[in-house]
Amino acid sequence: MMDEITVTFPDNSKQKYPSGVTPLEIAESIGPRLAKDVVVARVNGELTDLTNLIQSDAELILYTGDSEEGHEVLLHSTAHLMAQAVKELFSEAKVAIGPAIEKRFYYDFDVDKPFTDDDLKKIEDKMRELSKADLSVKQRILTKVEAIDIFSKLKEVYKIEIIEEIEPDELITAYEQGDFIDLCRGPHVSSTSKIKYFKLLNSSGAYWRGDERNKMLQRIYGTAFSSKKALNEYLTFLEEAKKRDHRKLGKELEIFMFDDEVGPGLPLWLPKGGVIIEELEKLAKETEDRAGYLRVRTPHLSKGILYEKSGHLKHYKESMYPAMDVDGIDYYIKPMNCPHHHKIYASSPRSYRDLPLRLAEYGSCYRYEKSGQLFGLMRVRSMQMNDAHIYCTPGQFKEEFLAVCKMYLYYFDIFGIEKYQMRYSLHDPAGLGGKYVNEPDLWIKTEQDARKALDEWGINYVEKPDEAAFYGPKIDVQVWSAIGKEFTLATNQVDFAIPGRFGLTYIDEKGNEAAPLCIHRAPLSTHERFIGFLIEHYGGDFPLWLAPIQGIVLPISEKSIEYARQVYRRMLDAGFRVTLDDRSDKISAKIRKAELKKINVMLIVGEKEVQEEKVSVRRRFVGDLGKSSLAEVIEDLSREIEEKR
Amino acid sequence: MMDEITVTFPDNSKQKYPSGVTPLEIAESIGPRLAKDVVVARVNGELTDLTNLIQSDAELILYTGDSEEGHEVLLHSTAHLMAQAVKELFSEAKVAIGPAIEKRFYYDFDVDKPFTDDDLKKIEDKMRELSKADLSVKQRILTKVEAIDIFSKLKEVYKIEIIEEIEPDELITAYEQGDFIDLCRGPHVSSTSKIKYFKLLNSSGAYWRGDERNKMLQRIYGTAFSSKKALNEYLTFLEEAKKRDHRKLGKELEIFMFDDEVGPGLPLWLPKGGVIIEELEKLAKETEDRAGYLRVRTPHLSKGILYEKSGHLKHYKESMYPAMDVDGIDYYIKPMNCPHHHKIYASSPRSYRDLPLRLAEYGSCYRYEKSGQLFGLMRVRSMQMNDAHIYCTPGQFKEEFLAVCKMYLYYFDIFGIEKYQMRYSLHDPAGLGGKYVNEPDLWIKTEQDARKALDEWGINYVEKPDEAAFYGPKIDVQVWSAIGKEFTLATNQVDFAIPGRFGLTYIDEKGNEAAPLCIHRAPLSTHERFIGFLIEHYGGDFPLWLAPIQGIVLPISEKSIEYARQVYRRMLDAGFRVTLDDRSDKISAKIRKAELKKINVMLIVGEKEVQEEKVSVRRRFVGDLGKSSLAEVIEDLSREIEEKR
Repeated sequence: MMDEITVTFPDNSKQKYPSGVTPLEIAESIGPRLAKDVVVARVNGELTDLTNLIQSDAELILYTGDSEEGHEVLLHSTAHLMAQAVKELFSEAKVAIGPAIEKRFYYDFDVDKPFTDDDLKKIEDKMRELSKADLSVKQRILTKVEAIDIFSKLKEVYKIEIIEEIEPDELITAYEQGDFIDLCRGPHVSSTSKIKYFKLLNSSGAYWRGDERNKMLQRIYGTAFSSKKALNEYLTFLEEAKKRDHRKLGKELEIFMFDDEVGPGLPLWLPKGGVIIEELEKLAKETEDRAGYLRVRTPHLSKGILYEKSGHLKHYKESMYPAMDVDGIDYYIKPMNCPHHHKIYASSPRSYRDLPLRLAEYGSCYRYEKSGQLFGLMRVRSMQMNDAHIYCTPGQFKEEFLAVCKMYLYYFDIFGIEKYQMRYSLHDPAGLGGKYVNEPDLWIKTEQDARKALDEWGINYVEKPDEAAFYGPKIDVQVWSAIGKEFTLATNQVDFAIPGRFGLTYIDEKGNEAAPLCIHRAPLSTHERFIGFLIEHYGGDFPLWLAPIQGIVLPISEKSIEYARQVYRRMLDAGFRVTLDDRSDKISAKIRKAELKKINVMLIVGEKEVQEEKVSVRRRFVGDLGKSSLAEVIEDLSREIEEKR
Repeated sequence: MMDEITVTFPDNSKQKYPSGVTPLEIAESIGPRLAKDVVVARVNGELTDLTNLIQSDAELILYTGDSEEGHEVLLHSTAHLMAQAVKELFSEAKVAIGPAIEKRFYYDFDVDKPFTDDDLKKIEDKMRELSKADLSVKQRILTKVEAIDIFSKLKEVYKIEIIEEIEPDELITAYEQGDFIDLCRGPHVSSTSKIKYFKLLNSSGAYWRGDERNKMLQRIYGTAFSSKKALNEYLTFLEEAKKRDHRKLGKELEIFMFDDEVGPGLPLWLPKGGVIIEELEKLAKETEDRAGYLRVRTPHLSKGILYEKSGHLKHYKESMYPAMDVDGIDYYIKPMNCPHHHKIYASSPRSYRDLPLRLAEYGSCYRYEKSGQLFGLMRVRSMQMNDAHIYCTPGQFKEEFLAVCKMYLYYFDIFGIEKYQMRYSLHDPAGLGGKYVNEPDLWIKTEQDARKALDEWGINYVEKPDEAAFYGPKIDVQVWSAIGKEFTLATNQVDFAIPGRFGLTYIDEKGNEAAPLCIHRAPLSTHERFIGFLIEHYGGDFPLWLAPIQGIVLPISEKSIEYARQVYRRMLDAGFRVTLDDRSDKISAKIRKAELKKINVMLIVGEKEVQEEKVSVRRRFVGDLGKSSLAEVIEDLSREIEEKR
């Protein structure tokens, strides 16, 4: 008699199966629909292929392609399918790597010339053919020697480079479907027929390992979903996201530029970007003033000894720019503002009466990113950060932490950010003294305080156990733009280690020397990342208070030009950012031009308006609002700006 | 019969003298008073010793010690007198160099230990003794070999080092008085008795040649004047200047700090400095907005190729920080903002309709200064500059140039700067194509336009022929603080060369491609230099609009604390930068403390004020102003701030 095992499902129901059953067979036993839809299983907490044998009692979760786990496997398997198709069509192509990323996948190939749109079409067709062929996807477990042998025969030099880096006695997994084999940890779908709804999106150059000193490969991006509907929804989203791409809009709206001779990842803010920056800084200043922050300004370079003290040179050097030798001493441009703020804290003796001390600075930081990692304003090499460090007593911590969270919500409200999530990363006591700084009481107290604050205020957060920073718990803030694109904005961190490193102290109520807690925060992120987000969030249609050009005055003909100039002058004097289009074009052409520039308010003046001493107001997305006196217009628009609507 | 020569005086009168007459003899022939007061002569345009023989017809000017030229010689001769005294008192001392500087002189000595105040006293006494001895000061002309021989015997190693650098066949001058001989170009006074009114001021360490890798020497500063009255006036000025020293006040008032681990010359602005910076930036923004400037923001580092193009790497490298190698390419932190602004100009096709384009940025720059050259906020290694570049057509130049000058005057008025001078440096046509970029028409036109603008507007300027920059005429702006200390604030320059280097063009009215003119300007200088100046100008007593702390609320006793808190809260809400001293000290002590912090407005509240719902106002330098309602106080102070009184 065959051995029986007990399988426990997520709803805690149990079922007996013969030992050696596969997750796919279990799915089949439940129903043909599930068997069709399931893409991957979790057996005793481990993600695994559907065809793996279950030999003893187990907890089992079956994931269909519309779950987060299932979707990732589906994407990754589609990447393999694409690689197989490319190899069949372009026999000389060498495969590099092909991971799943946020709702998409890509694969890098070493080919003679870039892929054309026509190539992508052909690859897609071939993928469909391979999907219909219902090829089994089988895992193979290899020794390093075997793996090198297989991939050497295939002349897959990139795979061999990866294998060479693996320890000699480690086992290597590969996946095989038809004639195609790929190095991969898996898991994967059980058959190519499980991949039905996919689309190749685009192709672009990418350096091997993101390093511009390496060879330029050709990367194909694609996506896949578990249903036609989900695929189409995503393609529509991509279409909209493409229109809102901050790199495209940033250029069209003259917000920022890059220049080859300045360098990659170093944005230059054009005048219109300068306006947005100044409005954001004004908002931050007003908000921070009300919240009792003090603003400081610190130099952008420092002796290396400062970063030895802070630990940056030990833990963060690969993200720093190289040293400059000045008078025989190494100087670095700063990767973070923290050490400079700590120096200001330490410059004067502090008492509990001086705390909390909140030092804020829109500080410039410089981080080395590989050129292949650079991406528009989202991954840059120089950035200006809405930074602050709050030094407080343990007793003040909860209130200060909550105030920071509330500041986030305040900003979300102003910018119409409706969906956000705070990822609250906690320590694991087992890691104390190793992965985590050994301050058990501080960890417990601050984590509890922070959790209470988050709960009391009804803040949307998820806890991430054992993902804290070395020096304290942290919160990563994700936001979603108006069309649902996700952005990582900022990180808040509590730091237990820094006061010791920098000798920061205060005299407490009892006259004893004590160490302050330090909270890092940057709710408005960096100018680069936040304005990049805002461009996409608003699709370039900034609210009036933030719009680089708030309005334009459009005379209908020669006869109203003089009056138009007066209107323009008065709007300028009232503090609006307006322009005047006094060319001799037709009014319809002028309106069209202003629309293209996404200008929110048009003040149209013709002979009638001159007679009545009024202006005709036309608002973007709204249309004509009829005639008003200029005083009324100024009042209405001022209120709209004041309220940041 | 002896040869006769004709000597022409500044008033064009002529007089015959025997050939070989000395300037001193001519002075004696005019009168004993002049003979006593004269310190140096100019013969045919060359400054020369009074004892030099005049062999042929000559133009002669005799300078007394109260002229600029005479004073400089007097100072330099006093430096020699001091060195002679030091050598007599400290026989092991080695002399280094000892020039005259702005109304003072110094001399550096290599001695075993720093000079004490007592040493300075002794040196002064010895100087008086040597002055009374009426020693002749004689020029000696030496070959390099003779000079090395003399100074080797004296073991004057620093002099030898200087002599070694001189060309072998060049003649060397030295000056001798009594037993003392010093290497010197001269000229000098004819006798030590001409040096009567002097004072040694202080002593400090200074590296040989200002380089911290060299030995630390001891520098003694002193001063000398032609009359006791002038000396005393200057000593009083120094006394006041010492009280106002921005390094001293900056620390006391917590405006900025330096830190060893950050590095020399890299100021950290404390919160109170942050307030001043933000007020200045607000002023600049408002002023520039009205004047049609657009603000941009550019990264602080760039590929080297940008600075090759701009010429900085060729002409300015020793003032730049060393390169950072990023991905095999040299990057530099920027010494100036110009190239980045030019890149923004070049990013878009420009037409005459787009000009003038005025790009402004409070840009951060980094310049390498030797550590021995660093001085408080005046000579630093990182700075934030009130920079702008105006791109205009030649036809717009005069108006743009004048607008810049007027902006200076506007700022001078706001800051109560009563004495200024613009030094207008012009080209010399002989230098075209060599010392000056070869654009004869542009030189003539812009210099004339600028001169006309300066004249029309009655601006105080002096012309400096043949002192222009390579690429165009320039204006250096000097201002004097409230107590008459001179500061160099900023430089305005016109640049003919840059449009060519960066390919900057515009399409003119006729549809042809033309090169714009470029004006650099920075009327508010750098934050570092300007705030350093303001601290000394105001002696730390900033006008209300600029004051980091504008007021303080002082409750007289426990009984009025609650009301004081309300007053404090209302002042904060009204936007004032106020603090509250709610400790239990006596009111007189609280007032004294506030005075020490130079707080301008004190709002004192006791039981009477609580009853009457008023506050007692006490203003610094003015005293008690009696009781007012808080609403009145807020209105008065708001107006004072608004008007920047």
